[in-house]
Amino acid sequence: MKRPAFGFIAVVATVFFVFTGHVSAADQGATGTQPHGLDPAVLIGVALMLVMAKLGGELFERAHQPAVLGELFAGILMGNLVILGSNGAEPLKTNETIAALAELGVIILLFEVGLESDLKEMVEVGWSSLLVAVLGVIAPFFLGWGVSALLIPDEPRLAHIFIGATLCATSVGITARVFKDLGKLATREARIILGAAVIDDVLGLLILAVVAGAIRAAATGGVLSMFDVGLIALKSLAFLVGAIVIGQLLLPRMLRGAGRLETRGVLLTLAISCCLVMAWAAAKLGLAPIVGAFAAGLILDEVHYKPSGGRKERDLHDLLQPVSTVLVPIFFVLMGLKVDLRLFTRVDILGLAFALTVAAIIGKQICALGVVERGINRLAVGLGMIPRGEVGLIFAGIGATLMLPSASGASQPVISSAIFGAVVIMVIITTLITPIALKWSLGRRHSAVAAGDRKREG
Amino acid sequence: MKRPAFGFIAVVATVFFVFTGHVSAADQGATGTQPHGLDPAVLIGVALMLVMAKLGGELFERAHQPAVLGELFAGILMGNLVILGSNGAEPLKTNETIAALAELGVIILLFEVGLESDLKEMVEVGWSSLLVAVLGVIAPFFLGWGVSALLIPDEPRLAHIFIGATLCATSVGITARVFKDLGKLATREARIILGAAVIDDVLGLLILAVVAGAIRAAATGGVLSMFDVGLIALKSLAFLVGAIVIGQLLLPRMLRGAGRLETRGVLLTLAISCCLVMAWAAAKLGLAPIVGAFAAGLILDEVHYKPSGGRKERDLHDLLQPVSTVLVPIFFVLMGLKVDLRLFTRVDILGLAFALTVAAIIGKQICALGVVERGINRLAVGLGMIPRGEVGLIFAGIGATLMLPSASGASQPVISSAIFGAVVIMVIITTLITPIALKWSLGRRHSAVAAGDRKREG
Repeated sequence: MKRPAFGFIAVVATVFFVFTGHVSAADQGATGTQPHGLDPAVLIGVALMLVMAKLGGELFERAHQPAVLGELFAGILMGNLVILGSNGAEPLKTNETIAALAELGVIILLFEVGLESDLKEMVEVGWSSLLVAVLGVIAPFFLGWGVSALLIPDEPRLAHIFIGATLCATSVGITARVFKDLGKLATREARIILGAAVIDDVLGLLILAVVAGAIRAAATGGVLSMFDVGLIALKSLAFLVGAIVIGQLLLPRMLRGAGRLETRGVLLTLAISCCLVMAWAAAKLGLAPIVGAFAAGLILDEVHYKPSGGRKERDLHDLLQPVSTVLVPIFFVLMGLKVDLRLFTRVDILGLAFALTVAAIIGKQICALGVVERGINRLAVGLGMIPRGEVGLIFAGIGATLMLPSASGASQPVISSAIFGAVVIMVIITTLITPIALKWSLGRRHSAVAAGDRKREG
Repeated sequence: MKRPAFGFIAVVATVFFVFTGHVSAADQGATGTQPHGLDPAVLIGVALMLVMAKLGGELFERAHQPAVLGELFAGILMGNLVILGSNGAEPLKTNETIAALAELGVIILLFEVGLESDLKEMVEVGWSSLLVAVLGVIAPFFLGWGVSALLIPDEPRLAHIFIGATLCATSVGITARVFKDLGKLATREARIILGAAVIDDVLGLLILAVVAGAIRAAATGGVLSMFDVGLIALKSLAFLVGAIVIGQLLLPRMLRGAGRLETRGVLLTLAISCCLVMAWAAAKLGLAPIVGAFAAGLILDEVHYKPSGGRKERDLHDLLQPVSTVLVPIFFVLMGLKVDLRLFTRVDILGLAFALTVAAIIGKQICALGVVERGINRLAVGLGMIPRGEVGLIFAGIGATLMLPSASGASQPVISSAIFGAVVIMVIITTLITPIALKWSLGRRHSAVAAGDRKREG
């Protein structure tokens, strides 16, 4: 059984090494002479990312690990070929089209997760989600601030606060994928985490917006008014409540109308359009687009429970799957591509990174105390909240672009390249350990309740 | 039955008019403050393009017209809102991510068309395809050259030759879509046209490459060597033959190996990866990526006829459909978006455009003489070869960027903005009339043979 897979890997690896030279050559000179607008590097890049993702996922699944970890490692492998002397994957890291496809992938992923979540059941665990989210933002924020103030005391105070903000984020994508891979998206633990991650994303981006506003104000010598802070907070809350209320009113009518259209693909088109409109609305309010996509999934899920949509529920899930099969791995491979293994050789970065990682992990374990219900695997909730993923990377990236006047009067980024490296390592470690830790925690629980589950199923 | 559709249109139109103002505002200032890399205009833009495409397609299907024409008109409607004072759709026309998604859409479309084509049957109509293609390139090339030399004699000779080259192209996408919409992809007419369009694309791009080379040589005072011309021709031929030979050897083994992988979505991932690799290979050789995508579809189609792939054939078709449902309409709406109705008010442009359109149509009708078989609807073959579509637009766009020294010594584009306008109108008219004319022609034939068809089916 194993020989064909390895033969297959050999073929693809050969193809990859032969092609990577061409990709880099292609990216340098040929763009001007291409008759078409799309950079051919995107075509071969996406093809390689998809094939490597499937191979990585396959190897990890055979080792009884979540496929998403394999996709991440496939990206890390491709991204660090530069150590072996091949820089073929370098153009993929900065290509805007691939970045756009990856972001569309994570939007579709959160839309799928939203579709599989049940709003009513999420309200049932609402208090747990809310408490977990609030603790999961406050604890890492102050821990990160403290670690930063202790280890790099020479940096300005706003840098410490910004590092604290970077630790707040929770990237629900990887946790959701692990729960999905294990077929446990319907558990209360998953719903608490997913609910908390949404609130957390809102709270984290709220802190980011406020801190970024304060930094911009400091750069021009001003201060952020409490009115601005209140406005940002109000917009965030209004979005989620508004989305759900308006969605409940409009969507059932739209879907009923759509059901009467005769062309093919109407349901999928409308569902994806709703998802994109909500993602856009979230972005317009300064929130992450994935928050909107998740909200769209929640609303459409509710719509499915109307009698007229009974047959369509499974259809939409089936129709979305090929789209997510193509787009979602691009995101996880790109995450891996951006990991530069050479950063792991610098001791000072490793020290700060280690301290920040510990702060990030402990900070999110504290939030497990927010679970008010009994019989919940609190460890799994705490572990599921750990990954910073794309949200942490985005936060760090924004910090690297925000400028602050230094003591000498010159302008310098709030997050220096060394701090950026440390934050990236923290993001990577928290992201990489989550699937393993979460799988271990859920497996432990699983073995304890497996007998009961089997009885219920049978 | 009609009321829900109109209510639905009213809701979407309102949403569109409310949103378009926001899109343009979004595109101007907010990019710097967005925490995510993806421009939110892409999210709302794609959503609107998809919804408008479905509505346009629905209205045209209800009027018994091909849905693709409705998608084109939806794009024209959105693109010319500027006449009504709204420039909300303007950013969509130049957005690189949307252009990339549209090109991926046309790549997936040609891949699907290739999958539905049968290589063996295409070889059967091979002589017809080859003759149709050669005549379909030579006739419009010299007709276009002649029309240009007559109407705009002051332009340099290379401009006339370039306009002739622009008329050579055949955009198989729209014709294939019409045949697909009418369920006639398996007819001999469709196979002759699709085969001819592939050869035509190769021949047309060959002429383009040679003419562009001659212009570049003229701009630097040199001439193109016959060796260069031969090299371009050799590469094109080697690609198609090589793709089919290597594909036949490698793909069955890869797909058999892939069938043994345990993760979900392996077949779709590999199929799309093959399609993208072939599109990339075509682009690397200076051919249109869609030629590679079509070749990939042809090869994979052959693979399906191996015993082990029997069950998978239908699967791959079903798996690809949601992906093409999302991506393909973006291409056709974008084509429509780029139509500026204000060009139609200039008499000089209209005159040249009219002459070029007539030359383009007559040129492709001549190629129907190349059909060597009996019992073929020659009119349908000639009509099916008419559309210039994206290939014509790409040719014209390249002409607008190629510089030639003028009589006064200053550098000027080979295709001036006025000629560009005329070529664009020609492209639009040939593209728009094809579905109507082809549908009429196929319908005529259909009624004549319908009785026999029904007897065979029953």
